[in-house]
Amino acid sequence: MAIHVINPNSLTDVTEGLDAAIAPMRAVCSVPIETHTLIQGPPGIETQAHVDLVVAPLLAQAQKLRATASAFVIACYSDPGLATLREQMDVPVMGIAEAAILTAMTMGQRFGVISIGPKSIPRHMRYLGAMGVTDRLADDRALGLSVQGLSDAQVTQARLLEIGTALRDLDGADVLILGCAGMARYRATLEDALGLPVIDPCQAATAMAIGALALHKAQKGS
Amino acid sequence: MAIHVINPNSLTDVTEGLDAAIAPMRAVCSVPIETHTLIQGPPGIETQAHVDLVVAPLLAQAQKLRATASAFVIACYSDPGLATLREQMDVPVMGIAEAAILTAMTMGQRFGVISIGPKSIPRHMRYLGAMGVTDRLADDRALGLSVQGLSDAQVTQARLLEIGTALRDLDGADVLILGCAGMARYRATLEDALGLPVIDPCQAATAMAIGALALHKAQKGS
Amino acid sequence: MAIHVINPNSLTDVTEGLDAAIAPMRAVCSVPIETHTLIQGPPGIETQAHVDLVVAPLLAQAQKLRATASAFVIACYSDPGLATLREQMDVPVMGIAEAAILTAMTMGQRFGVISIGPKSIPRHMRYLGAMGVTDRLADDRALGLSVQGLSDAQVTQARLLEIGTALRDLDGADVLILGCAGMARYRATLEDALGLPVIDPCQAATAMAIGALALHKAQKGS
Amino acid sequence: MAIHVINPNSLTDVTEGLDAAIAPMRAVCSVPIETHTLIQGPPGIETQAHVDLVVAPLLAQAQKLRATASAFVIACYSDPGLATLREQMDVPVMGIAEAAILTAMTMGQRFGVISIGPKSIPRHMRYLGAMGVTDRLADDRALGLSVQGLSDAQVTQARLLEIGTALRDLDGADVLILGCAGMARYRATLEDALGLPVIDPCQAATAMAIGALALHKAQKGS
Amino acid sequence: MAIHVINPNSLTDVTEGLDAAIAPMRAVCSVPIETHTLIQGPPGIETQAHVDLVVAPLLAQAQKLRATASAFVIACYSDPGLATLREQMDVPVMGIAEAAILTAMTMGQRFGVISIGPKSIPRHMRYLGAMGVTDRLADDRALGLSVQGLSDAQVTQARLLEIGTALRDLDGADVLILGCAGMARYRATLEDALGLPVIDPCQAATAMAIGALALHKAQKGS
Amino acid sequence: MAIHVINPNSLTDVTEGLDAAIAPMRAVCSVPIETHTLIQGPPGIETQAHVDLVVAPLLAQAQKLRATASAFVIACYSDPGLATLREQMDVPVMGIAEAAILTAMTMGQRFGVISIGPKSIPRHMRYLGAMGVTDRLADDRALGLSVQGLSDAQVTQARLLEIGTALRDLDGADVLILGCAGMARYRATLEDALGLPVIDPCQAATAMAIGALALHKAQKGS
Repeated sequence: MAIHVINPNSLTDVTEGLDAAIAPMRAVCSVPIETHTLIQGPPGIETQAHVDLVVAPLLAQAQKLRATASAFVIACYSDPGLATLREQMDVPVMGIAEAAILTAMTMGQRFGVISIGPKSIPRHMRYLGAMGVTDRLADDRALGLSVQGLSDAQVTQARLLEIGTALRDLDGADVLILGCAGMARYRATLEDALGLPVIDPCQAATAMAIGALALHKAQKGS
Repeated sequence: MAIHVINPNSLTDVTEGLDAAIAPMRAVCSVPIETHTLIQGPPGIETQAHVDLVVAPLLAQAQKLRATASAFVIACYSDPGLATLREQMDVPVMGIAEAAILTAMTMGQRFGVISIGPKSIPRHMRYLGAMGVTDRLADDRALGLSVQGLSDAQVTQARLLEIGTALRDLDGADVLILGCAGMARYRATLEDALGLPVIDPCQAATAMAIGALALHKAQKGS
Repeated sequence: MAIHVINPNSLTDVTEGLDAAIAPMRAVCSVPIETHTLIQGPPGIETQAHVDLVVAPLLAQAQKLRATASAFVIACYSDPGLATLREQMDVPVMGIAEAAILTAMTMGQRFGVISIGPKSIPRHMRYLGAMGVTDRLADDRALGLSVQGLSDAQVTQARLLEIGTALRDLDGADVLILGCAGMARYRATLEDALGLPVIDPCQAATAMAIGALALHKAQKGS
Repeated sequence: MAIHVINPNSLTDVTEGLDAAIAPMRAVCSVPIETHTLIQGPPGIETQAHVDLVVAPLLAQAQKLRATASAFVIACYSDPGLATLREQMDVPVMGIAEAAILTAMTMGQRFGVISIGPKSIPRHMRYLGAMGVTDRLADDRALGLSVQGLSDAQVTQARLLEIGTALRDLDGADVLILGCAGMARYRATLEDALGLPVIDPCQAATAMAIGALALHKAQKGS
Repeated sequence: MAIHVINPNSLTDVTEGLDAAIAPMRAVCSVPIETHTLIQGPPGIETQAHVDLVVAPLLAQAQKLRATASAFVIACYSDPGLATLREQMDVPVMGIAEAAILTAMTMGQRFGVISIGPKSIPRHMRYLGAMGVTDRLADDRALGLSVQGLSDAQVTQARLLEIGTALRDLDGADVLILGCAGMARYRATLEDALGLPVIDPCQAATAMAIGALALHKAQKGS
Repeated sequence: MAIHVINPNSLTDVTEGLDAAIAPMRAVCSVPIETHTLIQGPPGIETQAHVDLVVAPLLAQAQKLRATASAFVIACYSDPGLATLREQMDVPVMGIAEAAILTAMTMGQRFGVISIGPKSIPRHMRYLGAMGVTDRLADDRALGLSVQGLSDAQVTQARLLEIGTALRDLDGADVLILGCAGMARYRATLEDALGLPVIDPCQAATAMAIGALALHKAQKGS
């Protein structure tokens, strides 16, 4: 049995990055945590079409893992298929956006979100509304970097600092969320530079899955 | 090092009940979980005055446990001292009301709360407002039992079912929260009878503390 | 060129019902209105999985109709694929849930929704939250009829009246929405019996599509 | 029978401007659309007193048009008399503010409003609250031009671009509303310059009136 | 100089009732409190048309009283002309609905409103939305009595108790507002019977006007 | 009998400042107004711990004043012990934050708050949420001055103007609240400079206490 963390895009280096990000949690949890790449997924999930169309292969992969699943984590910041997978499974299922938001609500009063591109912000706003937590949002701002910029760690780190500073100083955020599955390696530096907690959503969701698994066991009384 | 769960009322049998409720979680988590009774607390926390005045001894006890604390759980459904303890500690601190509510938000769309008495409902409403999640509430209904009624397990179970049925059928709740630290033993029966997930807040908060501890370790990179 | 109304379930009699419901609109609008059945769709859309998985064939059918489309209407009360189709098309796209809700907001202050089954209510609540209009909802109540009951017009009409009365008298609704694509034939009788406006979502969405098409033409200046 | 669009200020050139703005809709709708000037109205509606006091002559004019009315549009961005006229008429009545807002909700997730002067913004905020859609507002910003500035098309266009840019880039708007009845001629240029949909409220309300009229006919079954 | 309380309907016995209701306040306040009847007003304010059309004569009467006014109170539960009168006067202006609601917010967490007839409830809901306090409403329920019933004190008192009980027990209200200017004489009995604070809006608004006048003087430094 | 205004910090010059601020109200109110310093309080209330721990001595002092109390005002902008004191007393109790906010809601549509330091803003946000009035907030901005800066009246006045200008021009505030008990002397100058109403919370709360006392007397019928 394991906690299965599924990266719904096809990039294995994203999966490797998230595996590294959650690795220290394995010392706390007696249940193994396994990361998976959805080979049938798109190379990145940017549009609403990507979100909608990745659900079918994601559900299929989850069904294959069902027999060995203590819990699932969907590692895309649009939480594709989250409600459906919860409908189909009787073990805990976490989405990284929802988990990051709920975690932020325990660390500050107004969270700021750093998105990759501006197109995803309306989608994020709909999701916050569906969760009923819009009042806790400071703001959602996009990095707006080119593909080249994103592939340059120094450029990305500098831009994260710029956007994070705006969220803190202009929008009143007292906790930040990295609104993407692949930026864990920038987290600690950003947190130190800003003096605010910064949440990597994959870490937050895996952590909540560990907790949910513990709760599930306690509820079953064993 | 341990997760310290503090019952801020002075009743040791309440502490024993919550220890039993969370016992199965010890198999999931590599860090010990210890339960404590706040001897200086009142025998029950019913009024706003109880909530306000228990903060001082609670903070004092937490300071004594600080050196061995991986995380704290405040086991009273009014979350006394939660914001203050978070201000003072650099390890995760959970309150059972906040944790139960955030957990409910992953299990259903509208949660119902079962309170002991009607006087606590306005306090709960203020708290939901402060959390910014009022739109997720189906309703909060009180058992309204006498002390004698509450001490009779059969009476209590029957009344829980009655109130839970009203929350489900009249108010549209699809998940329920037991709005009190001492009702874990009724949880499973109520869940089976209603066909809805029922959350014991002490279990939910301890589970979130385990997750938060895992997150904390991952953020520190070890 | 036409307004294309797509029924995303495979039942042609549902499509026929909605064609009849919107037929009188053809006298107002100079652009033809065509109804279509998504043959690849499921026989009914009840679960979140149905909603998620119907998007792919729905988008495919819309692409086939694109060259002749003045506007689209998605005729399922979960508005599957609405955000995606809007992303992909440069003509107006309406979903029947969103359109019914916006229309209700011009006819009353608090709308009640009559759903087929209780399972769809949490999905509706998420959607209202995403739209940011939760405060305008009186309540959402389910018919909760068996398949047999639903196939009996007299039983259905009686139950609609019962639920509609509860929405009006217990929940304070001053306008009602039929929360399903296939109940237009019950609308007028229910409206007369209750003395409140009752909205069929397919009619509302087709009407808004006609308006949106007029707006689109005016914005293009021709 | 006709859709009657009433400009409640006494300026006939404002009426002429709105007639031009909606002219292309006449090709879509089989019912005539007529525009009217409320001669007894003030030359402009700027204060809450203007809004309140224009209701009496507006209702009187509507009564005169009643026999030939298929629908009404009140063409002032404060929607004076909207609730009252709906109370008195059994045909659709649209206000341009409400209609622009509902239309914006189908074109983006957060709308920005461009007001003429800052005094009207609190009035707009009260109205959004009454509609229950405050969470969908990005922000409302005023042009703040002098009468001379407003009469200079180049100055106005430049200022619209400046304010629209702020709403898009600082406030996160993904759709804009011109918060005044007389700015339709600037719409297309602003939309092109900003890359966001821009809504003229008179066009939006007339479009919704066409749709509402179609719905009304379908509901009457003819 | 005086606090002028204007009853905008033409019934002098309503004015006499409110004068009696506020009489004991004269002992607290060093400024005289005068009550007035708007002879040009309708005999009752029930429809939105009544509300809109009473503004003009109300503003005219206020202008006549201006020279002797320390403050104004508009004594109709729809607060007609409140925003306009505030725009025109530089002394405090209170409306009885707004004042009753703000007062209720200091006496309980969820207020219930008792309206005369169901037609006014949508108007009240719009107003709560405009005030941004919808989340504090338990519910608004109508007496729904005939004119004959309303003129019978015993019938009215019994129905008030029935509706008040529903607001307390079904809707969770912990404070009640009489949603009409003319029911002060029933207040004390209802409060005693229900064990909840009950607010007469004329008393609440006059009280807030006294406070606002004190504030005004302190702000002027004399 | 008197209205007792208690400054819960130990600085007598703060008490003297607030006594001066409310002095002109004594001419309006026939009941004496007395100010008190809580000698056991901390020299300033800045952290959540300060807020929580001042409740016990504050309640003790209130009990001593009970026999002579017509009303209480708690003069700290975190309203420590407000709900508890209301639970324990049968005379009106006002907190300066709540009273300032409710007063602001009668003077403008969106209020801005000027806080001393950024640490108190999350606390203020929780409180606005608990009051259910978050939608009325323009923003809350901190002066962020050093102790030295705060002790220099010229520096403070200049910074108040800077922050007040930002709240008005960037955040859309049309009324401002001084978010601290000790800044009344800056109020008038700031109001004149900005052209917006500026509220000192001690003045607002004492004014509301006068009104509440009048209401209390009217409700008792004497």
